[in-house]
Amino acid sequence: MYVKKRRLGRGVAIVGAGVSKFGSFSDKTSRDLFIEAFNELKQSVDRGIDPKDIEALYLGNHIGEYCEGQSLMAPIIAGYLGMIPKPATRVENACVSSGVALREGIIAIASGLYDIVLVGGVEKMTTLSTEGVTDALGSALDALYETPAGFTFPGIYAAMATTYMDKYGAKEEHFMKVAIKNHNNGALNPKAQFNTTIKDIMNGRIAKAKQKGQPIPTWVDEMEFLKDPKANPVVAWPMKLFDCSPITDGASCLLLVAEEVAKSFTDTPVYVIGTGQGSDYPLYEREDMTTILAAKFAAQEAYAMAGVKPEDIQIAEVHDCFTIAELVGIEDIGFFSPGGAIKAIEEGLTARDGAKPINTSGGLKSKGHPVGATGTAQAAEIWLQMRGQAGARQVPDKDISLALTHNVGGSGPTCAIHIYERR
Amino acid sequence: MYVKKRRLGRGVAIVGAGVSKFGSFSDKTSRDLFIEAFNELKQSVDRGIDPKDIEALYLGNHIGEYCEGQSLMAPIIAGYLGMIPKPATRVENACVSSGVALREGIIAIASGLYDIVLVGGVEKMTTLSTEGVTDALGSALDALYETPAGFTFPGIYAAMATTYMDKYGAKEEHFMKVAIKNHNNGALNPKAQFNTTIKDIMNGRIAKAKQKGQPIPTWVDEMEFLKDPKANPVVAWPMKLFDCSPITDGASCLLLVAEEVAKSFTDTPVYVIGTGQGSDYPLYEREDMTTILAAKFAAQEAYAMAGVKPEDIQIAEVHDCFTIAELVGIEDIGFFSPGGAIKAIEEGLTARDGAKPINTSGGLKSKGHPVGATGTAQAAEIWLQMRGQAGARQVPDKDISLALTHNVGGSGPTCAIHIYERR
Repeated sequence: MYVKKRRLGRGVAIVGAGVSKFGSFSDKTSRDLFIEAFNELKQSVDRGIDPKDIEALYLGNHIGEYCEGQSLMAPIIAGYLGMIPKPATRVENACVSSGVALREGIIAIASGLYDIVLVGGVEKMTTLSTEGVTDALGSALDALYETPAGFTFPGIYAAMATTYMDKYGAKEEHFMKVAIKNHNNGALNPKAQFNTTIKDIMNGRIAKAKQKGQPIPTWVDEMEFLKDPKANPVVAWPMKLFDCSPITDGASCLLLVAEEVAKSFTDTPVYVIGTGQGSDYPLYEREDMTTILAAKFAAQEAYAMAGVKPEDIQIAEVHDCFTIAELVGIEDIGFFSPGGAIKAIEEGLTARDGAKPINTSGGLKSKGHPVGATGTAQAAEIWLQMRGQAGARQVPDKDISLALTHNVGGSGPTCAIHIYERR
Repeated sequence: MYVKKRRLGRGVAIVGAGVSKFGSFSDKTSRDLFIEAFNELKQSVDRGIDPKDIEALYLGNHIGEYCEGQSLMAPIIAGYLGMIPKPATRVENACVSSGVALREGIIAIASGLYDIVLVGGVEKMTTLSTEGVTDALGSALDALYETPAGFTFPGIYAAMATTYMDKYGAKEEHFMKVAIKNHNNGALNPKAQFNTTIKDIMNGRIAKAKQKGQPIPTWVDEMEFLKDPKANPVVAWPMKLFDCSPITDGASCLLLVAEEVAKSFTDTPVYVIGTGQGSDYPLYEREDMTTILAAKFAAQEAYAMAGVKPEDIQIAEVHDCFTIAELVGIEDIGFFSPGGAIKAIEEGLTARDGAKPINTSGGLKSKGHPVGATGTAQAAEIWLQMRGQAGARQVPDKDISLALTHNVGGSGPTCAIHIYERR
């Protein structure tokens, strides 16, 4: 695969970040969620930001048409932030909508057009039923060839999972270990939709059974719990309930500025030194379902721009919309060889205290997956970890100077990768 | 209004353009339409283009979710063009989706990231009924405050029209004159959905009545025809059927390259010397309904970047989704003073042989308005006019060196303006 070493005209830094609480909020609209994230962002900018100084907004949103009957969402949000008459643009690339919004913000600053840009994303999903959300998200499959064949996303990722099991010998337990790890992290993230470990979920159910005088389950650990089809029913084999990220309302945003003005906002900016984006055919047209070309291409472009290698990266947020996606993802970004993710999860290498911590935020699995907000939420986690502000989930014994985010859209026809540096 | 003089890191030129036939095509998908436009683009590049050399795609699409159940359209289209694994991004800003895609392509080249970028847009609208399309487009209104109040777009633009009539004394005839002018141009555009003058439509109906032995209408000219409520029924007073742009299937695209490599594609590139984008509140929150702040801001930013004034511009494509929109538009871009558009249309200043030809393509009114494709279709018309390739509708007696496109989204919460130069 030919990858060009690309350069941006100017460097770009993150000087603020905000994330709303992730969850199910019947009383909040997309606007409310974004304002909540933006208010946190304003607090996070060490020397402050006046919204009137922000020159443009790039907003990621995937299924606002289905969930709220709202297209043209970017200028409406910009109005609430006090940004009129500044430009506001919506980017829609399925679950990588705000990952690409981040990239467009970087490109716009690099072009010389702006010095200060707000990027973010939002999704308000719980207005629809589970079936309704599944259909809405399904619009990101190929509507001519995949949707009419009956595919929805759990089935798509299940097909990747069975292929991966067949090729590399992965077992259902490996997927379960990803879920356990990410819940262990999410339990330490107060913004997470499932702010709890799977062990605590299990113990909660045992306690409830005792309280109600029902037969007491005999699970001895999380793995037994996850193997019990009553506790963890199959959605699309081998993907079970705890292999799937949830339906989430949430928003996130980042303040991007030109490198040369970053220090006027904070002494500790997080520099974005690499950006890559790639595309691939829909799943039904791919030769290999155990890897995502768009991700490999995006990663290689980002590494080439940053001038670093996978082994240099200390932590990463990886797109775990389903547990199989994290295993494929950590291989696509070169952290492990093809099939090597199996051993990595077995040996705890991707745990928060492992050699390559993945998804310290809890990942999409535990933190939640408001699809349009996920890309910039991943970057917001990196922002906290790199500045030592991640609280109870701060990676131990590591001074993080290089990090990466991996954000995939749909079944993998699109992916954005970013590499971050703290100097 | 404070407008910053912005500069791009590098210049950008258009070296190719393609537009599909606009109309109603039950046998064509968005993919087919875009491929049709792209095939024309390939023919238009004087020294040729290999799709493998294109580095990125920005695709405008507004209501693909409603019309084809398809989000994440950009990488799917990129796959058909042979662009995998290059980045492909969908921009959705209602009817300015491809106007903003054009702007993002310009910005991406200016950033230094790419030298060769494809921008375009597509909309396949006729899969839905008129009511269905009206609802789908209505998603670009404010879904919390405008849609529940019963507004759809004809009503929104009717409100602007009545306000404009009240403030400046415009009559229904002035709107009709816009329609007559744009059909006169569209009759000369083989790609136009309504490739005919209103006079010919009138004569056709007279001939049909004669043929069928029905009472023969007594219209003596187009104006009488348009004043007959049977021929031109009210949609939302004062907007009648012939004041509204149609429901259209179509696609358009442009090949953008860095200024320094433009001459390796053609001896006659069209340089983009100004780009501006603005935002505004939804209509219900605006103080003045006879002007669009987003357009005025975008125009002033574009003029400042280009270093030219409204009086320097020789021709323009202006967003006439409804006839009132053209009158407001030519004032917002500074061609005429507020209310001055009335005299301009009365005196024929905006006719193809007038002092300021507007919508030589036929405009959205006659050429058609496949919403996501409109922005880059406007630029494609400028490309032809500036190179003297517009055939029968080529502006007479003018050597065009400066031109402008004005592309508005929704009721005006978003607008993109571009200024073009032939050297």
